[in-house]
Amino acid sequence: MSLRPTLDFLLYQWLGVESLTSRERFADHSRDTFDAVLDTCERIARDKYAPFNRLVDTQEPHFDGDKVILPQATHDAQKAYADSGMLSAAQDYAIGGMQLPYTLEASGNAFFAMASVSIGSGMLTTGNANLLMQHGTEAQKRVFALNEFSGRWSGTMCLSEPQAGSSLSDVMTRAVPDGDGFETDPLGPRYRLTGNKMWISAGEHELTENIVHLVLAKIPDDNGKLVPGTRGISLFVVPKKLVDVNGQLTGERNDVALAGLNHKCGWRGTTNTLLNFGEGKFPVKGQAGAVGYLVGQPGKGLHCMFHMMNEARIGVGMAATMLGLAGYHASLEYAKNRPQGRAVGPAGKDASAPQIRIIEHADVKRMLLAQKAYCEGALALELYCARLVDEQHTGTPEAADEARLLLEVLTPIAKSWPSEWCLEANSLAIQVHGGYGYTRDFPVEQYWRDNRLNMIHEGTHGIQATDLLGRKVLMDNGRGLQLLAARINDTVQRGIQQPALAAHANALAAALQRVGAATKAAWATGNPAEALANAVPYMQAFGHTVMAWIWLDVALAALNHDAAQTQPTTLGRLAATRYFFHYELPKIAGWLPVVESRDATCAELPEAAF
Amino acid sequence: MSLRPTLDFLLYQWLGVESLTSRERFADHSRDTFDAVLDTCERIARDKYAPFNRLVDTQEPHFDGDKVILPQATHDAQKAYADSGMLSAAQDYAIGGMQLPYTLEASGNAFFAMASVSIGSGMLTTGNANLLMQHGTEAQKRVFALNEFSGRWSGTMCLSEPQAGSSLSDVMTRAVPDGDGFETDPLGPRYRLTGNKMWISAGEHELTENIVHLVLAKIPDDNGKLVPGTRGISLFVVPKKLVDVNGQLTGERNDVALAGLNHKCGWRGTTNTLLNFGEGKFPVKGQAGAVGYLVGQPGKGLHCMFHMMNEARIGVGMAATMLGLAGYHASLEYAKNRPQGRAVGPAGKDASAPQIRIIEHADVKRMLLAQKAYCEGALALELYCARLVDEQHTGTPEAADEARLLLEVLTPIAKSWPSEWCLEANSLAIQVHGGYGYTRDFPVEQYWRDNRLNMIHEGTHGIQATDLLGRKVLMDNGRGLQLLAARINDTVQRGIQQPALAAHANALAAALQRVGAATKAAWATGNPAEALANAVPYMQAFGHTVMAWIWLDVALAALNHDAAQTQPTTLGRLAATRYFFHYELPKIAGWLPVVESRDATCAELPEAAF
Repeated sequence: MSLRPTLDFLLYQWLGVESLTSRERFADHSRDTFDAVLDTCERIARDKYAPFNRLVDTQEPHFDGDKVILPQATHDAQKAYADSGMLSAAQDYAIGGMQLPYTLEASGNAFFAMASVSIGSGMLTTGNANLLMQHGTEAQKRVFALNEFSGRWSGTMCLSEPQAGSSLSDVMTRAVPDGDGFETDPLGPRYRLTGNKMWISAGEHELTENIVHLVLAKIPDDNGKLVPGTRGISLFVVPKKLVDVNGQLTGERNDVALAGLNHKCGWRGTTNTLLNFGEGKFPVKGQAGAVGYLVGQPGKGLHCMFHMMNEARIGVGMAATMLGLAGYHASLEYAKNRPQGRAVGPAGKDASAPQIRIIEHADVKRMLLAQKAYCEGALALELYCARLVDEQHTGTPEAADEARLLLEVLTPIAKSWPSEWCLEANSLAIQVHGGYGYTRDFPVEQYWRDNRLNMIHEGTHGIQATDLLGRKVLMDNGRGLQLLAARINDTVQRGIQQPALAAHANALAAALQRVGAATKAAWATGNPAEALANAVPYMQAFGHTVMAWIWLDVALAALNHDAAQTQPTTLGRLAATRYFFHYELPKIAGWLPVVESRDATCAELPEAAF
Repeated sequence: MSLRPTLDFLLYQWLGVESLTSRERFADHSRDTFDAVLDTCERIARDKYAPFNRLVDTQEPHFDGDKVILPQATHDAQKAYADSGMLSAAQDYAIGGMQLPYTLEASGNAFFAMASVSIGSGMLTTGNANLLMQHGTEAQKRVFALNEFSGRWSGTMCLSEPQAGSSLSDVMTRAVPDGDGFETDPLGPRYRLTGNKMWISAGEHELTENIVHLVLAKIPDDNGKLVPGTRGISLFVVPKKLVDVNGQLTGERNDVALAGLNHKCGWRGTTNTLLNFGEGKFPVKGQAGAVGYLVGQPGKGLHCMFHMMNEARIGVGMAATMLGLAGYHASLEYAKNRPQGRAVGPAGKDASAPQIRIIEHADVKRMLLAQKAYCEGALALELYCARLVDEQHTGTPEAADEARLLLEVLTPIAKSWPSEWCLEANSLAIQVHGGYGYTRDFPVEQYWRDNRLNMIHEGTHGIQATDLLGRKVLMDNGRGLQLLAARINDTVQRGIQQPALAAHANALAAALQRVGAATKAAWATGNPAEALANAVPYMQAFGHTVMAWIWLDVALAALNHDAAQTQPTTLGRLAATRYFFHYELPKIAGWLPVVESRDATCAELPEAAF
């Protein structure tokens, strides 16, 4: 079963991405070049990723005392990925990129996430290099970013620390000027860094010649004190191996040492590490301290990071989505082939008749349709957000600003919703398989384990919810929320005119109104502690409302292209829409009451009562 | 953190199990003897089970070509369990039992499930022996059951086959009379069995001297054909090693061979096996075919099995519950000690102040209180059902019959609800831990993996739902449902009189009414295919309503014993009740609409549309 028909429909029929080729930046592109990229990604994912997904789960990374060992398949897969040019797919032709829309880059990467999410494509490396292209000096771009885009080096993001997981203001890594003339280093102001960084994905390995760490650290003030809070945070580029201004290794190791590999429940194809910076294991010029070069202005480190956060969060949402789709396809295949049991009612009374296939049972169909509605819906949402990124980058100033604001509001949903519901889809995929799904002979239990990470990394569920209700729906006096409501209302208006969809459209309008009212009710007292105490149930209801809108909009496009509903795919999309409106949207009635009443049951419970 | 205060409250203050000691069967017991049993179980679980829970996950069972190897800790734990006498806790004094109420037996076993669910206690062995005590001949009881109760041998249940997982009517294992005089074997009519049995827990190991398999098989008719359907199924006792009428091993191996170990996502402390019966690997008297002795009447095999199904399903529900509680306790401990972040609002603005512990965050409290409400509520439900088992066995005829019917209706909930919601609790326990929860350095990811089995084995979620809506709420003209409604209404009446609980009582009454109406609506057309198409959402709503009742009843007992609410545990129980009514019960509005409308979205979707 291929992802392509669904992806093609969403890209071309629903989002109309072909129209992007009329923009100057994408003028050399056409549906043919887009398709060629998707073909290439699909092929590499099929040949170099999918066959090794279980292998990377079983042979998890280990440290042999000298090096981190990963299976050869991981080396091969990442080389094939780099060779495809996808690492710089969205970059300018001038630096060897393809000037591909982000929507297509994200679509191409989806194949790798589906085939083996933890072998991974190049999200961190691309993100790291993108950040340097935005905030780095010319030398930093040339030396670090370009060598990442080529696949020669890879990149990391070093934010968390053992004592500061989600709380970046408590970062304690110190950066002090590296001697006289530190300011005039051709690679940027040179510092020495000391500290520990936790949860660093791809923090140590031998897949590439070098690793480019982007590290958040604080420059002490004149009294040697670290500035409290996030405004004290600066950003540094810290290579694992020192390099010269021409991007050649100097042959000297930087003072960055692997302190430990994290042994995870899933997602084992990628190392996850604790790194010690500047502990003196690899002294540089006889001195402890990891050499790092300042990126951007001192104290603006988090600002630089935020620049890439939307895309990283869309990337996580897409990964969760593709794991969900992988489980959906696997369980659909299984259900079509597994005989078990007989029909309910008189038709099933004849015990001597052959068993039916489990896809003929209503409850199995329910579990399959739920997966389809969750995962194909999530894919549509991620692509919608990716399309907004393109609009932000290449639209008219007005459209770009609107896209920016919409993205601010939608990103917490794009990250959190698939993390929660495509994980649930993976659980349903196990359930469809019965006992077999619980064994390692079938892939679905691994998808489920892999997917459990997505509610945690790149901002936990709770942090997304606080971001949504505490910041995003309020910013610019609520203009982001109003823009979203306008788009939803536009879909509602079109839906009302379609007899098959009118009831859904009315249900969506009611849900939107209730979410809007709940937003106001949450903030009625203006007390953040009261408003945010139930931010997660709020986000769940908000997310389901957004997804209902996405499905209604997709259904309209499906009918637009096949008004007579002659194609099974059209029936499938209409059924998934109906499933979402009948089985899912009513759930907001379970989440919103505590938001509307600013329920304090949890917030006020004394610790001793647990 | 100990389970005891919660367990003691539920047993003594809520269920009043001490009153059972006034019954003749339990006359020698007292709260002291009950407590002594719980103390012993708690101690063995702490010393012999909990320390090895991760070990049995890492060193999963393997076959060395001759034997199945399990860690020494598993041998030690199961020996300590057998030595405690718990295998025959509920049996008569006359056969060496303790004549303990089932409620206390289940409570004692809960400690083992919490400490290491997959090392396990003796659920299968006890269940196997109990079945033989009910349906076996005197010789079968003496030879097989008594040696299981003593721990010398262990037991299995061999129901599923590769082509017949949930569909027992398709069992193909054949049993043919074993030569002349087969009927007069002192161990019961002797047959030779041929077939494959899948998903057999503890099907092969060296933990005990022998393994007693209880096997469902069909006796061919005069034409050599198997009778289709479940009425063709008979039950056989098939020892791994042949035994004489005195229960001594004859030294001969029976023709039962390990065909494979299943490699599971979790629950790895117990072997799960595919067994070949009668393939000729271990011929008996030179002839292929596993020797088995008929138990009960031919064709009544499933009837015998049903006898133990309620207790087995309560056992699964209890296992799911205890995994949930283990995660709750672990994440509560973590949340009390992990500093991270600052308060919301003005109080948290000072970035130079120390970080607060995460239990001070409202959303972490929400995740902890959800776990408490799910898992302590589920524990109450399981104990309530266990108490009904005691009533069924030792109550007046009228009370026993009422208990039997209530158990029929409640068992699908007792099995399914904790399987679903205590799994969700385990996911929340991971979430509270953040990235650490996703590593194998903390126990919560294993709890989550272990718990995923419970929605599958001993009747899947879908099967429980069909059982509930298709059989249990209808049987005896709905009298089981009416009895349950009467008990719920009794709690509602008492709740209305408590100002602190009156609103909950009203909400429960409304929920009960809606579930009743949904039951009628589902069956309005009398068409099982229509009624059962949404049996799972029905069961989810039914389960949440039952749990709301349980919590309201527990809250009443808490107030009864501490009207002034001076104890933190009272506050905790009232808060969990409030949590359940405010955050959970409203969810039934998300599940019932499709039941009420007999929604056919899933059932009618053609296969090609997926």
